[in-house]
Amino acid sequence: MTEEEIINFDTADPLAAKRQHFELPTGKIYLNGNSLGPLSTAAKLRVREVIESQWGNDLISSWNRHRWIDLPLAVGEKIAPLIGAAPGQVLCCDSVSINLFKLLAAALANRRREHAVILSQQDIFPSDLYIAEGLIKLLRERGVSAELQLVPSRDLEQAVTKSPDVLMLSHVNFRTGAVHDMQRVTDLAHKNNTQVVWDLSHSAGAMELALDACQVDFAVGCGYKFLNGGPGAPAFLYVASRHQTGLQQPLQGWMGHRQPFEFEPHYQPDEGINQLQTGTPSILSMSALDAALSCFEGINAAQLREKSLALSEMFLSILEKDSTSSELTLVSPRSPHLRGAQLSFSHSQAFPISQALIEAGVIVDFRSPNLIRLGFSPLFLSFAEVAKGASSLTQIISEKLFWHERFSVRAKVT
Amino acid sequence: MTEEEIINFDTADPLAAKRQHFELPTGKIYLNGNSLGPLSTAAKLRVREVIESQWGNDLISSWNRHRWIDLPLAVGEKIAPLIGAAPGQVLCCDSVSINLFKLLAAALANRRREHAVILSQQDIFPSDLYIAEGLIKLLRERGVSAELQLVPSRDLEQAVTKSPDVLMLSHVNFRTGAVHDMQRVTDLAHKNNTQVVWDLSHSAGAMELALDACQVDFAVGCGYKFLNGGPGAPAFLYVASRHQTGLQQPLQGWMGHRQPFEFEPHYQPDEGINQLQTGTPSILSMSALDAALSCFEGINAAQLREKSLALSEMFLSILEKDSTSSELTLVSPRSPHLRGAQLSFSHSQAFPISQALIEAGVIVDFRSPNLIRLGFSPLFLSFAEVAKGASSLTQIISEKLFWHERFSVRAKVT
Repeated sequence: MTEEEIINFDTADPLAAKRQHFELPTGKIYLNGNSLGPLSTAAKLRVREVIESQWGNDLISSWNRHRWIDLPLAVGEKIAPLIGAAPGQVLCCDSVSINLFKLLAAALANRRREHAVILSQQDIFPSDLYIAEGLIKLLRERGVSAELQLVPSRDLEQAVTKSPDVLMLSHVNFRTGAVHDMQRVTDLAHKNNTQVVWDLSHSAGAMELALDACQVDFAVGCGYKFLNGGPGAPAFLYVASRHQTGLQQPLQGWMGHRQPFEFEPHYQPDEGINQLQTGTPSILSMSALDAALSCFEGINAAQLREKSLALSEMFLSILEKDSTSSELTLVSPRSPHLRGAQLSFSHSQAFPISQALIEAGVIVDFRSPNLIRLGFSPLFLSFAEVAKGASSLTQIISEKLFWHERFSVRAKVT
Repeated sequence: MTEEEIINFDTADPLAAKRQHFELPTGKIYLNGNSLGPLSTAAKLRVREVIESQWGNDLISSWNRHRWIDLPLAVGEKIAPLIGAAPGQVLCCDSVSINLFKLLAAALANRRREHAVILSQQDIFPSDLYIAEGLIKLLRERGVSAELQLVPSRDLEQAVTKSPDVLMLSHVNFRTGAVHDMQRVTDLAHKNNTQVVWDLSHSAGAMELALDACQVDFAVGCGYKFLNGGPGAPAFLYVASRHQTGLQQPLQGWMGHRQPFEFEPHYQPDEGINQLQTGTPSILSMSALDAALSCFEGINAAQLREKSLALSEMFLSILEKDSTSSELTLVSPRSPHLRGAQLSFSHSQAFPISQALIEAGVIVDFRSPNLIRLGFSPLFLSFAEVAKGASSLTQIISEKLFWHERFSVRAKVT
């Protein structure tokens, strides 16, 4: 690929102007937006305003004056179009793990069969498994018959035919980037009288999602990856409208009450999605996410998906033209439509190679024991950067730069 | 009280210099630090640094480089001396409500009797009751025998003799400021084989607490009231060392795992208090709290308690000298040692009086239906301010300023 061809990609990129909304450090190529999205100018200025003017000057009155109280719903509504959700179904609150607990418990309460079963895969993001385990354990220690069933990917469809109460899956696998067919899996689950809970942490903001169209029951997702909300940003959750009446979720706090400021001793859930709130929302962190979401204005999820795949395809094509990079094993699906916005490669020297890349200014992830993980966040990456990142990787491998003296200490660590 | 006497109070105040750490709006007397503590310069500068330099420049590497990963434990250790806890027992995470769910579930798991009982008071902060209700409902909908028992304050000691699994109480009542004798109630509970969970939201940072000395089992508390952590700041929890081994808490997320970055499919709780973590912590909000806690350096909880009581006693003495203020009914205990860092008064016109105070620059709380609530946060208030606040209140009442034309619209609202 010539330099001119690469420049043409950037010139033709309808999202190219979004880059200027981000404050990326110069000289770095940030292929880690799937771990922690970068700082936007909007988030920086907004938090400054919230702290110095709203908190600092207007103090307690800001809950109404600056509508802090509305943030969880307002931020939810900004996320909704990115995941294919009509209004009134998305809420920003707490962490992915906490939100998952709410939704798994609600899904089990919907069914209330004698034996509660949550079906999942062994290799989804572990915190999701821990939360499901925690809920099941809480019930079992009281003598309730309940089970978390983990199966390998290939046995999943067979296991669904046994009608578990809930099927909990990551839409995009955090290690490999392999993506589930949301429509197909959701349909299959529903045919078997099973509800689905999708974890969209590695999808939202980079993939085209259609939760309503797929008739998804429940979903959770992360605010600090492709949504760029900042370190530990609040998460979001989705509950389809049809599940909101009579919903039973145990983490019922005052912010989800119908009249929180009446301070009634008994819980009355608010109508709609707001009943999923629990405690007082984290205003500083949620404001950063709210502002960061403004960077998505004027574009749609299809454009995000298209660019992200084009970036990763360019990366792969450069790699595939270089014979030495055959040392790397692509762990992600080669077919772009089967993977999310990331590429993962295995290599026996994955750790020193990652370190060499980082030293060269190409920020990637190492995932134990032998994975190099690269995220192709469509909102701020340019094709030129991705091409340069690919060249750095081929150079590091072909010239064995990861064995170079300056990396020897780190290399020994592995 | 003469002006000179008031000045003498401020001159003799060992905490007076702390005032300069806060960025309070000029012309306001902020008697609402019990709802939302004010902005400190430390918090402002720290969040700016975390956003602009750490997140902005160092991106994902900040988790290690700037020790974001250590914040929940580090902030917990800063709170520990304020509540009389030895190291290793306090953690900063999530919200009060979420943390309460963890601890109530853990306390029930400790006992695992056939019939689970949580005993509490009808008038504690409602979110605590909602959370307990949520846990009980989750168990009951699966056929487990479980109960949340609410009794009036006067029946509490009698009810404890029936040995509930858990006694859950607010240390300081959010409406009246009435304080429980922590030592006495905890002893009584233990004598009856009952564990206690204290909510310290209206105590921490303003009262002298001795959790270890009282042999408290569990506690939660708020980061955004007297600790000044900012709107929706993360909360904290306390688990006595003796309960940490074999603890069962259902909100088990990856941050509480023994080896979170090994991504194992099964949960292995970390040792010690860290097993109470759940999802990824909110770094922006937690950093603000961390910095705000630096304002407590060099002072101890006894000094905080002493000043807070002196402030509220001065307020009362000014009021009591004014005949018209007999219209106000003190709802808080008159004896200083029986109340926390607040005073609450009832008045049929509480709402317009609160509004008149706020218009006059004295920021107070109105609590439905008829309470005026004033917080005496010891870290930033001066005696001169409190005296001025008391004079404003007597003036508003004696001159019926709350019926004044400019308040007529608001007055009608009530």
